[in-house]
Parts: sequence; C-alpha cells; structure tokens
Amino acid sequence: MVIVLDKNIDEKKLENVIKHLEDFGFAVHKSTGIQQIVLGAIGVKPDFDIRKVKILDGVSEVYRITEPFKLASRTFQKEDTIIKIKDVEIGGNKVVMIAGPCSVENEKQIFTIASIVAKAGAKILRGGAFKPRTSPYSFQGLGEEGLKLLRAAADKFNLLVITEVMEVNQIELIYKYTDIFQIGARNMQNFSLLKELGKVTKPVMLKRGLAATVEDWLMSAEYILSNGNREVLLCERGIRTFETYTRNTFDLSAIPVVHKRSHLPIAADPSHATGLRDKVLPMARAAVAAGTDALMIEVHHDPEHALSDGPQALLPDQFEELMKQVKLIAEVIGRKM
Amino acid sequence: MVIVLDKNIDEKKLENVIKHLEDFGFAVHKSTGIQQIVLGAIGVKPDFDIRKVKILDGVSEVYRITEPFKLASRTFQKEDTIIKIKDVEIGGNKVVMIAGPCSVENEKQIFTIASIVAKAGAKILRGGAFKPRTSPYSFQGLGEEGLKLLRAAADKFNLLVITEVMEVNQIELIYKYTDIFQIGARNMQNFSLLKELGKVTKPVMLKRGLAATVEDWLMSAEYILSNGNREVLLCERGIRTFETYTRNTFDLSAIPVVHKRSHLPIAADPSHATGLRDKVLPMARAAVAAGTDALMIEVHHDPEHALSDGPQALLPDQFEELMKQVKLIAEVIGRKM
Amino acid sequence: MVIVLDKNIDEKKLENVIKHLEDFGFAVHKSTGIQQIVLGAIGVKPDFDIRKVKILDGVSEVYRITEPFKLASRTFQKEDTIIKIKDVEIGGNKVVMIAGPCSVENEKQIFTIASIVAKAGAKILRGGAFKPRTSPYSFQGLGEEGLKLLRAAADKFNLLVITEVMEVNQIELIYKYTDIFQIGARNMQNFSLLKELGKVTKPVMLKRGLAATVEDWLMSAEYILSNGNREVLLCERGIRTFETYTRNTFDLSAIPVVHKRSHLPIAADPSHATGLRDKVLPMARAAVAAGTDALMIEVHHDPEHALSDGPQALLPDQFEELMKQVKLIAEVIGRKM
Amino acid sequence: MVIVLDKNIDEKKLENVIKHLEDFGFAVHKSTGIQQIVLGAIGVKPDFDIRKVKILDGVSEVYRITEPFKLASRTFQKEDTIIKIKDVEIGGNKVVMIAGPCSVENEKQIFTIASIVAKAGAKILRGGAFKPRTSPYSFQGLGEEGLKLLRAAADKFNLLVITEVMEVNQIELIYKYTDIFQIGARNMQNFSLLKELGKVTKPVMLKRGLAATVEDWLMSAEYILSNGNREVLLCERGIRTFETYTRNTFDLSAIPVVHKRSHLPIAADPSHATGLRDKVLPMARAAVAAGTDALMIEVHHDPEHALSDGPQALLPDQFEELMKQVKLIAEVIGRKM
Repeated sequence: MVIVLDKNIDEKKLENVIKHLEDFGFAVHKSTGIQQIVLGAIGVKPDFDIRKVKILDGVSEVYRITEPFKLASRTFQKEDTIIKIKDVEIGGNKVVMIAGPCSVENEKQIFTIASIVAKAGAKILRGGAFKPRTSPYSFQGLGEEGLKLLRAAADKFNLLVITEVMEVNQIELIYKYTDIFQIGARNMQNFSLLKELGKVTKPVMLKRGLAATVEDWLMSAEYILSNGNREVLLCERGIRTFETYTRNTFDLSAIPVVHKRSHLPIAADPSHATGLRDKVLPMARAAVAAGTDALMIEVHHDPEHALSDGPQALLPDQFEELMKQVKLIAEVIGRKM
Repeated sequence: MVIVLDKNIDEKKLENVIKHLEDFGFAVHKSTGIQQIVLGAIGVKPDFDIRKVKILDGVSEVYRITEPFKLASRTFQKEDTIIKIKDVEIGGNKVVMIAGPCSVENEKQIFTIASIVAKAGAKILRGGAFKPRTSPYSFQGLGEEGLKLLRAAADKFNLLVITEVMEVNQIELIYKYTDIFQIGARNMQNFSLLKELGKVTKPVMLKRGLAATVEDWLMSAEYILSNGNREVLLCERGIRTFETYTRNTFDLSAIPVVHKRSHLPIAADPSHATGLRDKVLPMARAAVAAGTDALMIEVHHDPEHALSDGPQALLPDQFEELMKQVKLIAEVIGRKM
Repeated sequence: MVIVLDKNIDEKKLENVIKHLEDFGFAVHKSTGIQQIVLGAIGVKPDFDIRKVKILDGVSEVYRITEPFKLASRTFQKEDTIIKIKDVEIGGNKVVMIAGPCSVENEKQIFTIASIVAKAGAKILRGGAFKPRTSPYSFQGLGEEGLKLLRAAADKFNLLVITEVMEVNQIELIYKYTDIFQIGARNMQNFSLLKELGKVTKPVMLKRGLAATVEDWLMSAEYILSNGNREVLLCERGIRTFETYTRNTFDLSAIPVVHKRSHLPIAADPSHATGLRDKVLPMARAAVAAGTDALMIEVHHDPEHALSDGPQALLPDQFEELMKQVKLIAEVIGRKM
Repeated sequence: MVIVLDKNIDEKKLENVIKHLEDFGFAVHKSTGIQQIVLGAIGVKPDFDIRKVKILDGVSEVYRITEPFKLASRTFQKEDTIIKIKDVEIGGNKVVMIAGPCSVENEKQIFTIASIVAKAGAKILRGGAFKPRTSPYSFQGLGEEGLKLLRAAADKFNLLVITEVMEVNQIELIYKYTDIFQIGARNMQNFSLLKELGKVTKPVMLKRGLAATVEDWLMSAEYILSNGNREVLLCERGIRTFETYTRNTFDLSAIPVVHKRSHLPIAADPSHATGLRDKVLPMARAAVAAGTDALMIEVHHDPEHALSDGPQALLPDQFEELMKQVKLIAEVIGRKM
C-alpha cells in the first residue's frame, strides 16, 4: 500500500499516520520527495479496507498495490487453467460452442434443438430449468422435469449439459443432472451461492454482473476458488451503460483483459449482450476474433413461440451459418472450433 | 402496446404483423398517418416480451404502454403505504432514523452504539450478522450470536431491529430476531429470496441494485408484493457510474421519482452511497430535503477498529449533529423527525 | 509517481525500468517489500503520461501521486475563491440565485420573467441568445438581438447577466452584454474555447460535461485558470447514467467533493439535471442542503409556448415557493440567500 | 407521437389534452382500450419537444414515433453511402485502413511512419496538428507546420490525409492540406463546428462522444448533412462506463446498429477505445469481424519518445502483423482490405 501525504503535513500528523499503520500491522518505509512525503506500507492483507488510512488526518491519497484477488490471478498461476470434462476442454486451443434454448420447455423442443446444435458442432447444451425473470408474472421454468429432459437430450446427442442454479437449495438437485453449473449475472455477488459452489466437484460458469468491473468479477471467482473448486469459467454477457439500443453493452475488451490478469478461461454470450437476433452473428464473430475460449448462443427452432427470450434466439440455419463463420475466424488466429 | 410500422410497408407484411398480434391474443386498432401506419394492441399481459413483435418484418418500433409493475404502482394504489411497527410509522409525516454499526461485533460495541443512537433520536437499530463482502477473506459476520446481541441491545433502548438476510435458508432464523428484513443491493434481483420474503409477515427493506433502474427496482418489489407481503420499504443507496471519487453516485432524484410512480415509502442511505464519512452529513441533509421517508446512517463509537466499513461510519457527536440538522430540514418541508 | 513491479521481475528488467525513469527526468527511490519491489519517481510534471511507464516490461501498476490540476486545487489555494460582481458575491456565505428562461424569445417575455425573478430574490438573470440544440431543426436563439434584450431587462430590474458562449468568435460580441460567460456541458472540453475565455476579464461558469469525472472538470477549469482568468464558477447539472426516468442523474455529492478538492465555488442546476418541472423544487432544496454556493433555475411565465425547454421551467408562483423554501434550508446550515 | 392517458382521466382533462395537441398543429386520433385511452398525434416535426405533452394533466406516457434524424436514416436513403476520394472508397466492399501517429512531431517522424503504414497497406495517413489535450500543460500540436509535413509525407507515399479540426477558425487553413476533416469525441456536440463543416466540400469523420448514444451521434451527423455535406464517416472510439481497466469501453455492437439505422459508413478506432497497445490487435480483429468499414490505428516507430499517446501506438512490426490478420478476417466475411 502506498500512502501519499498532504503537501504541508506537520510532524505530529505524520507520526500519527505512521503509528496507525504500524498498529494495523504494516512495516512502513518513508520516502521524502520534493513536494510530498510518500509512505510505503508492506504486508497488506487482501481484506484490508484502505479507507481506514484514507480518513486519517494528513493523508492525501492511498493506493492498494497488491491485487485484491489471489487465486484467480495470473501472478498466482502462470499457465492457463484448462477445464476438462469428458473429451471437451475449455481454455485450450479449441473454441468451444455452448448452444441451446433459453429455457427447456418440453421434450420435443429440447430434443429438436439438441439435435440441431449437435449436428452443427456444439459441444455443450444450454437450457434453463430454473429461470431468473425480471417479472414475477413471467414463465419461471419447468424445475426438475426440465433438468431431466435437458440431460436426456444431451445424452442422446453426445453433448455436455450446462444449466443455471439460482440458490443454495437447488445445488444438490442440479448436481445430479448437469456437467457445469451456471451462475447468472444477477447472482454474481450472491456470496452464499458462490461459497457453496466452491465446495462442489463440478465446474462453474460465472457470468459477469451488469455493474461489475473485471476486478469485482474476479473477486467473485475468488469466492469459488478459495472454497476449493478450481474449475471456474468466466462469461462476458454485457454490462449496463447509457446506450439503450442494445439490451446491454457487450464489453469485448474484457476478453484480452481477463486473459492478461487471470489464468481462468472466458466465454462470451452475444445473445444476452445484444438481446437482438440480427446482432448475434456479427458479435459472435467479433468475440472469437477478440480471443474468447467459448461462445454461448441461444438457438430455437420456433422462437416465435419460445416461452422466454425468443427474440434473441437464432434459427437453425442462422446457427449453422454462424458456426461456419466463427470456425474460419478461429483459424485466422490459430485456433480450432 | 403501440407498434409503429416501416414507412414503406407492403400489404402482405402488414397483414402478417396483424395476424401475429391477434395470435398473441391482442385486439388490434389500425391508425393510418401521413407517413406511417401505427397499430394499437390492446390487452398486453405484464410478462409479454415486446421483442416478439419488434423482430417481425416491417415493424419499426414497439412501445409497451402499461407499466410492467402493477401492485407497486401509484395507479394501483393512490394512497401512500404506511408501514407501522409498534409505535413507528414509515411513510407517514415523520422521517424515521435508522442507525447503527455496519456489523454487530460484540456485546459492548452494539450496546454502546444502541445507547448513542437511541439517545439522539433514532427509532430503528441496524447491524449486520450475515455480511455480504466483496472479498472472501473479509469478516463475514457473527451469525446467530450477532442477531441475539442486536435484539437485546435494541430491546434495552426501545429500538426496532433491521438486519440483512442473504439467503432463503436464513429467513427462519432471522425472523426470530428482527422487525424488518433488509435485502442488500447485490441481492436485489435474487428472485428466490424475494419470493420467499413475499411470504413472511414482517416488513422488508429492499435496497436498490448498483445497476438497477427505478423500474427494475419496482419490479423486484413486485416480486415481494405479489407473493403476499405488502410492507415494502425501498432504499436508495447509490448507483454505479463512471465517477469514482465517491463509492457510488447517490441518485437523490430517485426519491421524488419513486414517490410519483409508487405508493411505497423510500429510505436513503448516504453512508453506503458516498462511502466517506465527511460526505454523510451534507448528503443526509440533501436526502431529507428531497423528501426521503427514512434515513439509514452508519454510526460507530470507535470506527478505526470497526471490523467493516469503519471509514464511512459517523462518530457519536457527528451523529448527534446530523440529527439536529436533518430535524430542522424536515421542518422546513412540513415534516417531523 | 509510484511504480509497482511484477513479483518475479529479474535484475535486467528492473534496471531497464529505472533507466527509463531517469531518462524521463525523474529521481528514483527503490523500496523492497516482502513480495514486490516498489519504485517512487519524484518530479512528475502534470502532463506526464503515466502509460509510458505502464507499458514497460516488468511493470505491474503505476499510480500518479500528484493531482493533474494545480491552480484549481485546494492544495494550491486554501481559502475559498469568492467571485465579486458589483454587489453580488458567489462563493461566500450567501447562496446566490440565478434564474430566467432557457432562451430569450422576445422583449415582452424577457422583461416579464426578469421582473418575476428579481422580485422573488434572484440576483442574476439567465437566458440564451445562442443555443446549442441536439437537433439542427430546433430554435437556435435570437443572437445579438437576444443579448440586447437580456441586458436591458437585467438592468431594469437590477440583475446581473449570465449567458452561454458557444464559440471563440462569439466572445467579443457577448462580452459587451454579459457579466458572466457560461460554458455549456457539451463544450466542457472545447479546449479552444476554454483557452480564449482564460484571457477575458469576466467570470466564467463552467458546466460539468455529461461524461466528465470531477477530475476532468477541474482539468477544464485549469485551462481557464492557467490562461489568466481566476474567476471560475463550476456548475453541476447532471451526468449521463443508465437511469432514464430523469434526463440526467443529478450528482449532488459532487458539491462536497468539489469543496474539498478545490477552492472554486460551485452552482447546481436542477432544471437541466432532472428535465422535469415537478422534480425541480425537491432537488433545488437538496442542492442547498448539500452546500451549493448558487442555484440556477429555469423560469417561464408561459412555459407551454416557450421556444425551448418549457417542460422544465417553473411557473412564477412555483419559483416564489422555491425561493421561500431554499431560503429556510440555507438558514439551517448557517447561510443566507 | 403516441400519448397514453392516465387510467382514470376525466372528460375535461381529456379534452384539454386534445385541444393542446391540435394547437401544436397535430391531427389527433383517439383509440379507447380496455384500461386506457391512447391518442395518436400525426404530423410531428423533428424538433418538437415531447415533454410539452408529457407535462399536461392526465398524460401518463408520451412516445415519439418518428426518429429525430432524417437525412442520416436508412429510411431516407436505402443504399449505403460510399465516400470516394481519388481511388479510395469508404463504405464499399473494401475495409479501409487509416493509420499514423497521434501527433505530427517533426519531418523525420512523419515521413518514417508514413512509409511504414503505406508499405503495410494503409490508404489514409492520420496525424494531429491541433491537439485537444485534457491538460493545458500538454503538447498541443505543431499547427500549420504540422499540416504541411503531414501533406508532404502523405503525397510522397501516395496516401490520403485525415486530421482533426478543433474550431471554426481552423477550417480554412486545414482545408488546404487535408482530404478528410476529423471531429474529435469531445467536439461531437460542438454545434457551431458541425454546422460550418456542413458547408465544406470535403468529407468529415465524426467520432462518437464519450457519453453519446447512437441516436445523439446520428443527430450530430444530421447537423453536417442538413447543411449540405453528405459525406460523413462515423467513428466508434469507446464510451465512458464504470469499467476503468481499459481507457473506455469499446462498443462494437454500435457497428451493426449503425449499419441498420443509417446509410453512413462507420470506422472503428481500437487505439483510443482501449488506450493500451496490447489490446489493439485483438480489438482491431473484432471490429473487422463485427463489420466495420474502416479501421483507425495509431502507429509510431519510437513510441517511447512520442509526444502524445505513445503507450497506445503500435510498433511497425506489430502493425504489419495486424494488417495481415485483419485482411484474413475481412475475407471470412466476404470483404477485402
């Protein structure tokens, strides 16, 4: 931690600041410049609240030097984390396609879509059984019945399963059916949920919250990692800004940023980020070009009658076209799909 | 719902749009202007996803006419909701003070602070026993022991209790000790939690999420209301913007906006909104001047050793001064404290 | 400037970083901690681009220690700047009311409104003659004719004049008629304009840009100050966020923040910040409660026929009521109006 | 314009609203639904301020139906605008590369860089002679001397010239040297400047403002178009959000959004959007994958000694590599470079 003192600080205040730092457990280095004195405080714990120093008399600015996350950082682990599930690897050379409907609606729907996405080259089937909806009056998912259908459809077409968990009480049930747990954007800082998922033995995909900085997001990953589960996949799905034409603002720069700061793999979800079907193809291409490790795409064979998020789902032939294009883009940057 | 069609839409596309609307269950009115045809669709359900119409060929813009929330709206209930707990009324003429530490730390701490805030005129004691912390390495609260101490301290000084609930599994336990359940900003769209709190028989204070519009916030209130609990207090505590000098941006305009659109009472929390002790006094005054029904203020007798959020807690004499000033402001606008 | 090095930096990279710093003209202090080496670089010029260091191999983080603005800072000048024009002082104990229509429309209009606001206690008459409008098809102001009317109306009712300048070429003309130059939010970083206004001998009111941090804003003030004009009044008028119910988000916390970091006085404009007449009264009260040095309010005797921004203008009796209330609020915090 | 009335509006208020609409010059259609009455007002002028209706008693919501911009819209002109300058076409099948240093610094620098970028395949040379800098103490450009050098270097290597104009007074001078005028993000709503550039006979590249929605941006383009200049190139360069790791948030979705709503071509500038050299390559690829018509990239042969923005400039070999990669990406989507 670096503490910049006020330009005209007197001896008494200076001593008081140093005393406080020592009481907090720091070793203190003093560095006297032309205009200002700067203190270095060595030994900051990751949970130290730097505002405790900021409010001391005579303190002008305080900078935390160490990143607040540890296990998630590239400093802690240099090599990329690769999540292996059966024959699928996320975070390696291949870009992995995750596709499927927003919600599991019925047997025919999920089997039809699973067949389409498997044929086009997807490796993981998505589909919600418990749906977080902004309105209490909207369709909330089929529950366990949905999980069963999702698993059966995935098994038939040799796909893995990813599905969302909304609360601690659902973990045990969902564990029986899924390969990857998904944490939605609205639950990114549901710390109770994060802690419990840190104790399960299956990978977790953590979506970025609407108002989360990359740092907040990695701190949430830290909750899972520090409870023992090292298989965390991040997923960029748009942040909230003043621009309203698209549902959210797709922050694709987060992909190279995460790759630099963390060893964890990252996915991108252009369906939720844009909220509009005709924006999904160009933004999926862009995500692969920016270096994403996985794509998550909503697909529906009959989106007009989808029970949720139909307007952002691709039609089967649009999805096939997308697979073709992103495959070529992946090759340009030396990857495969 | 109002549907604006493309300027040069042909007859076939027009018929297709109308057919879809009728299939969705709407009665359709057609209105032909100089430049464009506009359709009115009567009978929108609150959960209808307007993007289903937005993606039809020939459709230019779609506007939802009815507000997506019902029970929370001023249209549904004209008179202000007043929450009565023992002799305290929130949402009436009196501005109610909620004060206390961020976390309950030990017996001495909570009794000392309870005594201070009660004496200065607070009616409700705040204090966390289960703490949502950004870092997994930070103090996470005392749990049930904290709840017991909080209740005992409140009872001794004739105060009500408010404390945060982070997950469904904690509701039963917390119910035994609290008068008001608090939902934190990070859980504003934890729909599982909202639903369950809709079934309890005690009031709920719902903090605004960092990225939540007023409409999102009222939709979350709707989750509680539609499950049966009509005693919801909203709480503005800052939104996330590009300005970083303060922890968040305190959106005080939300106070008159909520009062216009909803009958629910609203509180304001300048401690979390600004994150800096020396900004709490002016912003508390501003909140009362803007018409808040309650204030929530963090107070600590020894903030330097507080286990959480010490830097934003007021010292006892600062809190007394604040009470004095906000009381006078309340009187200027015809209210009491 | 403080430079934090990578944890495992080797000797060669370390030397390279130090060499670069010395070449940039810095004196370098090295401080070796348990985990990391931290360098202090003494002698940063305000225009040094710290990214030059950020991109060096082996550098983890770089912090600028000194504030990028000088003349605007509280460090440079401890006492509040008070702008005196005739018998009006801005930045002293009295809160100053600036009021008038959005645009000067015709003689009758501006004289009527000047009479109303003067009687109610305003000291400065506002009114645009050159209007920055989002649409090229909107009313763009009366030009010099408007300036003449504005001056005449102000003189008749013993008011000062403030009016907006949009480009360098207008300065000479406007100088003849105004007491204070106003720079609009959209021109806050029109550096050519700022520089020229730094050379005039009349005060300048600088509105905060929609996307400007407090620091950006003070940097723009620095452009005026460093060119010789020390009479700068800042004006908070809302920033752009995701919330759309109000036109902008009124960042009232900026008032105590500016007062802490700078000696310059600050005004608040609730009319533009909220964009809605019925929100102006509560937010004007809140601004005074938060410590603003001046208020800027739009008033129109016939807003339905106003040529611009009628919907946010107060009616005469609403303005009188506002004056009454904010006066009482000012007294609560030991000020006058 | 569509006006939704309050649910329980009485006859008198209804008549009053209709009368006002007729007085404003609208033809009014009434449509009575189950819950609410909706009025259609035909004949809205683009500059009509809908808040005039919003504040009438009994009005619940008002929606503008027509887009506020005309000449910039896809409705007005179906075919893409292609800007032709000598043998370069912007907006056609080929993606055009614009490259060069942030500022022109001296003869050797600009000739060296022009040679590098021309050889690698760029068609247009960028370089600032008048620089808008956040700090008044930073390098402000060489002025006319810079323009001369820029022109000479471009001519020698058969490149076109683009350079920034900051104020009306510079137009005549810059016209002599440039092929394309650039308007910077901070001047996007400098309406005086926009109007004057609407009268010149050379193309204008309009950068998106930090807080500008796509709609605001197209409205600014409308200022240029409506004054007679139909050759406007838009340029996405990042918006301001809460995320601070990158300088701005690169809103790549704006590319397909602009292509849908407008016929104007669009460029993307990853150098300014990210502010970090190592993010430029992935984000340039992403921009081409998303469908940009042109790329603007900062290149410097000696960025450590660049007088401005060195840290975001690519080195010559990095630029060559970028050209190679984006060329392949362009081919994937059926375009050339």
